[in-house]
Amino acid sequence: MKNKVDREIPDDILKEQNYNAFQTSEIGPANKQRVAPLVAVSKGNGKIVNSIQEVVEKLVKDGMTISFHHHLREGDQIFNQVMQTMIDLGIKNLTLAPSSLTNVMNDLVIKAIQAGTITNITSSGMRGSLGEAISRGLLKNPVIFRSHGNRARAIEEGSTKIDVAFLGVPNADRVGNANGMEGAAAFGSLGYALIDAQYADKVVLLTDNIVAYPNTPASIKQTQVDFVVKVDQVGNPDKIGSGATRFTKDPKELKIAKMVNEVITHSAYFKNGFSFQTGSGGAALAVTRYLRQSMLDNKIKASFALGGITKPTVDLLEEGLVDKIMDVQDFDKGAADSMKNDRRQQEIDASWYADPDNKGAMVDQLDVAILSALEIDTKFNVNVMTGSDGIIRGAIGGHQDAAGAKLTIISAPLIRGRIATVVKDVTTIVTPGDLIDVLVTEVGIAINPKRQDLIQALSHVSDLPVYTIEQLQQRAEKIVGRSEALSFTNRTVALIEYRDGSLIDVVKQIKE
Amino acid sequence: MKNKVDREIPDDILKEQNYNAFQTSEIGPANKQRVAPLVAVSKGNGKIVNSIQEVVEKLVKDGMTISFHHHLREGDQIFNQVMQTMIDLGIKNLTLAPSSLTNVMNDLVIKAIQAGTITNITSSGMRGSLGEAISRGLLKNPVIFRSHGNRARAIEEGSTKIDVAFLGVPNADRVGNANGMEGAAAFGSLGYALIDAQYADKVVLLTDNIVAYPNTPASIKQTQVDFVVKVDQVGNPDKIGSGATRFTKDPKELKIAKMVNEVITHSAYFKNGFSFQTGSGGAALAVTRYLRQSMLDNKIKASFALGGITKPTVDLLEEGLVDKIMDVQDFDKGAADSMKNDRRQQEIDASWYADPDNKGAMVDQLDVAILSALEIDTKFNVNVMTGSDGIIRGAIGGHQDAAGAKLTIISAPLIRGRIATVVKDVTTIVTPGDLIDVLVTEVGIAINPKRQDLIQALSHVSDLPVYTIEQLQQRAEKIVGRSEALSFTNRTVALIEYRDGSLIDVVKQIKE
Repeated sequence: MKNKVDREIPDDILKEQNYNAFQTSEIGPANKQRVAPLVAVSKGNGKIVNSIQEVVEKLVKDGMTISFHHHLREGDQIFNQVMQTMIDLGIKNLTLAPSSLTNVMNDLVIKAIQAGTITNITSSGMRGSLGEAISRGLLKNPVIFRSHGNRARAIEEGSTKIDVAFLGVPNADRVGNANGMEGAAAFGSLGYALIDAQYADKVVLLTDNIVAYPNTPASIKQTQVDFVVKVDQVGNPDKIGSGATRFTKDPKELKIAKMVNEVITHSAYFKNGFSFQTGSGGAALAVTRYLRQSMLDNKIKASFALGGITKPTVDLLEEGLVDKIMDVQDFDKGAADSMKNDRRQQEIDASWYADPDNKGAMVDQLDVAILSALEIDTKFNVNVMTGSDGIIRGAIGGHQDAAGAKLTIISAPLIRGRIATVVKDVTTIVTPGDLIDVLVTEVGIAINPKRQDLIQALSHVSDLPVYTIEQLQQRAEKIVGRSEALSFTNRTVALIEYRDGSLIDVVKQIKE
Repeated sequence: MKNKVDREIPDDILKEQNYNAFQTSEIGPANKQRVAPLVAVSKGNGKIVNSIQEVVEKLVKDGMTISFHHHLREGDQIFNQVMQTMIDLGIKNLTLAPSSLTNVMNDLVIKAIQAGTITNITSSGMRGSLGEAISRGLLKNPVIFRSHGNRARAIEEGSTKIDVAFLGVPNADRVGNANGMEGAAAFGSLGYALIDAQYADKVVLLTDNIVAYPNTPASIKQTQVDFVVKVDQVGNPDKIGSGATRFTKDPKELKIAKMVNEVITHSAYFKNGFSFQTGSGGAALAVTRYLRQSMLDNKIKASFALGGITKPTVDLLEEGLVDKIMDVQDFDKGAADSMKNDRRQQEIDASWYADPDNKGAMVDQLDVAILSALEIDTKFNVNVMTGSDGIIRGAIGGHQDAAGAKLTIISAPLIRGRIATVVKDVTTIVTPGDLIDVLVTEVGIAINPKRQDLIQALSHVSDLPVYTIEQLQQRAEKIVGRSEALSFTNRTVALIEYRDGSLIDVVKQIKE
């Protein structure tokens, strides 16, 4: 059947996997029964285990669901060791349910699939060799992609039940109190991992830094932890964060950033107490810089900045331009350090950040969100999952989550090299177009026709050329030509869930 | 049948209420399925409600279980308003399940029982007119008394299911983020209330101080809260804490405190990195003062202080004599202020403090606990619940919980007025004698014979006269005479649970 954004969702998947097809981005009120873990009662002694093998042998059985977090990003030195151990022990049929997968994990995931150790995956995204392999049919069962908020939702309602969570931390005491802020592998907020710590039946911490008891502040608490494994190195500090903040010098990115700022500051939302999420990447950092100047010029302060946090956002906090930072992950060392030192920077878990099924998430209170796109189409649907070649090379991240902001801006170049970003139909729909308010490209902006208020507000701003999205699409096509239709087989290799758990799209296997 | 501490537990209660009789203070490993709340999904807007009546009408139905916390102690101005509203609305058959009841609540509880609004109570304790009324048979169903850790256990396993929690807080934002640290009614740690916020189906905050969104640090989170009610005054600041710290000048108390310190410092536990819980009250404060001097003299530092926290303990933190304070409640303003200002003072919830059925509570790591007693008998069993007249006038509090420490000291006078504290058989057993290591009275100490190591260590300390507990009991009897046996009817008015949920004793109705 076709769902409400006109995507064909295979009937067998709807039936066999008990899915609903995507209907609406409006998630209505309801009563939801939360689930809870099976807790192994102990006095908290004897949790220290000396090897990964010992803890895997103790806990992991064929067919279980295991999880990891991705706060260590490309510096992660936990995942591969645990996965290799599971392969070596001949464990089979695991469901791998990390908060996301980074490139450093790709080789071992592929190896584990080939060994039959992993037979199911749910993740926020994947890139590189793994995305390529999945797109070419490596895994029998379709991968399930979920946003950060949707992952929290699925865990909290029990549709994803984590048997064992393996959580790398830069410090822990012998009973399992831990945070992300101190130690060689410090990365700041433990936001995504906090859900695993709360809901997994068994929680294993892996650390290279066992500190005196009791370890505080305790983001993960001893009451949640079964074992603490001492390892040589949790992560490579140079690869955990994005390193020193560098503002883009790319004139195209600067132009886009400047226009994004124009859109924000000319909207009704730019007033004292407003809130925003900018995300990471060169253009996002540049937006923050322009926004800072506009806030100073207009004597406007924000109540909170949300999301993945970067040093330029921390600077706004320190300057008094932002009252609070609500921090689900830190993208660089400056942001991580600030969470340690400034109590106005509050660590939040993935549910608080964006679960659509709780009593109110941060994203529900968000005024302005600036998001990226691999592709955006003339219905404003956004793809952040597959390349124009149809291959998986992205992540939902918080895209669907933050897109519910009152003003959602997609910041993207019209074309990338010889590839159009603005297209007639995105390869894969991740975020439905009705949530997107404005597209900003280097040549100008397009406003979603359903936002007549924004069209009014932004139509006469100098330096802000306004086009229809069709005009931008045609302009892109004029430059790079019409792209050939992609060839896919009939086999589904990935399911794209909307944040309420319905199916908004599927990814088919590439035809070779 | 008689349980393992020789108390008669009525068979009908064991059967009808599905109780086990107390067997052992050793709580073994097990797997326990946690429960979880039914969450009313919302975007977090529209939570502000203008009157208590409105929210009670919205949420409370006959037969429900409702809860409150007692962090506002005798300054509480929430409980009576909510209870009066429920009586006025004619709500019936509620189970009242607060973390404890303070004297300021007594009149309304009695009124609500008389009105049929309350038909069941579970609490840590009760005193004054309410304890008297219950002991005389006011409530048809027996009250259930539980320690703080046991309450967390019961809520986490679902045997107490809270339908609506009414939680007074000194600040909250419009979406429900709140802490106990700022505002006119600030009281510090929200330790007991955090369990209600996490497990109740509906969570109502009541505050006189609605602050800007987002309110941080958020001890209670917006994801947990359904409604925020604006009230005129949450609490009377003068009555919330015990006020300025005053050390006792009572020579008897000072003598006991000095001997308690001798016991600690001559034990094997007094070494770098030890931990302690002293509690509140004049004698406890004096112990802290003596302990401080011994720590300075011997260059010994503690890893943590636990429990209800007082300013003298905070002073040790500030002096560097204690590394961390693990804080489930604050007894005075100095302690509450410190939690706000010193991140080494970690707020912990009641489960982390003392739930025997989690993956390790703070009390399981505790070296030294100093506890009080209304009565202690020759089997070292302790009563902190009923007076020698058989009337309910106490609270389990954390008594059973902290008594699991490696060195558990009861600090109590031999006699109080004309009443013996050391007796042949306590009126009510709250904490089993096998957990008690040393009794300290003003005339000397008694060591539990099962602790031959302590008898060895303490027998030759000058200024520390050692007696058998029988000798102390006889000495007390010699002074005040033999007390007459109490007269009770056959009707059970209260059940005393051990911290694992088994029945360690019952309280019978007074014979008039």
